[in-house]
Amino acid sequence: MSELVRVSISIEKPLYERLEKLVRQSGYTNRSEFVRDLVRRQIVQREWENDREVAGTVTLVYDHHVRGLTDRLTTLQHGHRGVVLAATHVHLSHHMCMEVIILRSRASEIRKLTDEMRKLRGVLYAELATASTGEELH
Amino acid sequence: MSELVRVSISIEKPLYERLEKLVRQSGYTNRSEFVRDLVRRQIVQREWENDREVAGTVTLVYDHHVRGLTDRLTTLQHGHRGVVLAATHVHLSHHMCMEVIILRSRASEIRKLTDEMRKLRGVLYAELATASTGEELH
Amino acid sequence: MSELVRVSISIEKPLYERLEKLVRQSGYTNRSEFVRDLVRRQIVQREWENDREVAGTVTLVYDHHVRGLTDRLTTLQHGHRGVVLAATHVHLSHHMCMEVIILRSRASEIRKLTDEMRKLRGVLYAELATASTGEELH
Amino acid sequence: MSELVRVSISIEKPLYERLEKLVRQSGYTNRSEFVRDLVRRQIVQREWENDREVAGTVTLVYDHHVRGLTDRLTTLQHGHRGVVLAATHVHLSHHMCMEVIILRSRASEIRKLTDEMRKLRGVLYAELATASTGEELH
Repeated sequence: MSELVRVSISIEKPLYERLEKLVRQSGYTNRSEFVRDLVRRQIVQREWENDREVAGTVTLVYDHHVRGLTDRLTTLQHGHRGVVLAATHVHLSHHMCMEVIILRSRASEIRKLTDEMRKLRGVLYAELATASTGEELH
Repeated sequence: MSELVRVSISIEKPLYERLEKLVRQSGYTNRSEFVRDLVRRQIVQREWENDREVAGTVTLVYDHHVRGLTDRLTTLQHGHRGVVLAATHVHLSHHMCMEVIILRSRASEIRKLTDEMRKLRGVLYAELATASTGEELH
Repeated sequence: MSELVRVSISIEKPLYERLEKLVRQSGYTNRSEFVRDLVRRQIVQREWENDREVAGTVTLVYDHHVRGLTDRLTTLQHGHRGVVLAATHVHLSHHMCMEVIILRSRASEIRKLTDEMRKLRGVLYAELATASTGEELH
Repeated sequence: MSELVRVSISIEKPLYERLEKLVRQSGYTNRSEFVRDLVRRQIVQREWENDREVAGTVTLVYDHHVRGLTDRLTTLQHGHRGVVLAATHVHLSHHMCMEVIILRSRASEIRKLTDEMRKLRGVLYAELATASTGEELH
């Protein structure tokens, strides 16, 4: 763990009381951790806006009975070996699969790859979760 | 202005340095104001989730040549006199209007009214901006 | 009104039935209008991504007792005469004001101006609603 | 695959031309698939709003050197055996881990579990991707 520093924030008294209430209601035991989480969320947002190296996950729902789809998904991922870190597959029903693909690259590259997967015939849903390599978060 | 209190936040040194950079890059002159803005944003989000009394604005783009639309918009707003605080109209082009309607009510009521306006024939676009009465922000 | 054309969409039978249910539940009387609204929403999203000329509104909540704030907001808006189309002011309480500013410019310019207003001391909340000039929506 | 039906949509000629352009620019080969994707996205959004049984993924970034965190994450997941379908772990750096957890439950339960993970000391970032069991998508 890194060395901790203490930072002082000036805040209007009523807003301070609302902050304390918000910390409790959100289930944080600790005001500092609450504020740090807000700051880290801003950092990740900024990383994506500035097209930095980030990490993210794509959640796909698809019908594995569509001919050739599994192959096309595999080929697409292999063609981006440096970007795709891992993929996890879950069987949702007789027809339906979920596949979650963990990616690390520049933000724009991850967005582009997400769009390519969304468009594949048989892919019914694709959602990108923006995250971070963690380098800027600690 | 309310009395200011000083609140101490403990934060890892590298994260502290990133916070300072973020404050500067975002153009804030003041770290406290940056953190207060993050807190206030959380408060507004919470007000909407908990269906509290809030304020919001609906931005409509519509084609005023659609027969009866202006009347229907006016009637709808008059039917919610207690909710609609003001409406501003701008002429975007020969055909196109923008109307921005300021609302104050419970969150669910504002969402419902937005959906009703979006569905009107001739309304081409409707977007809700979630804001606050300000009571919890100072 | 423009000439209407009829477009044919092929769709799986169960998904078709869910679409019909969704149209009814959303309160649309008309499946075509529901689909057109989805398409127009995509068009506006694309306009913002591609930094096209768009329209948008900024909703501010602020404390008008903060010395000089009203002047700074006015000066900022006057400095962008070509961009600011209109501004509407509402008194939320003894202290609190809402001001809704209608803007027309390139997407990046509107975002930048929103950020500048958010940072002003006394501005407690700022939210941008992305909309359109309407040119691409009919 | 389900039986396909053909659905007719009436649309203004200029909007039709913009739809065709949007389909091409988005890289879809097929207008029907583009519209079906828009409809499915609405269905998933509705499932989450109505607190239906859904699927989703939580992406965590955390520092595995924080004492006890790995145990707490494991315990939390085991306590929700019926909800957690799978978890995938990736090593981002010497300190940083990413863990992606696939969940299936009611929407509110998944949101609650996400919040609980976000608050754990050492968890630096948590992001929920809303998806679907796929039952309503085909």
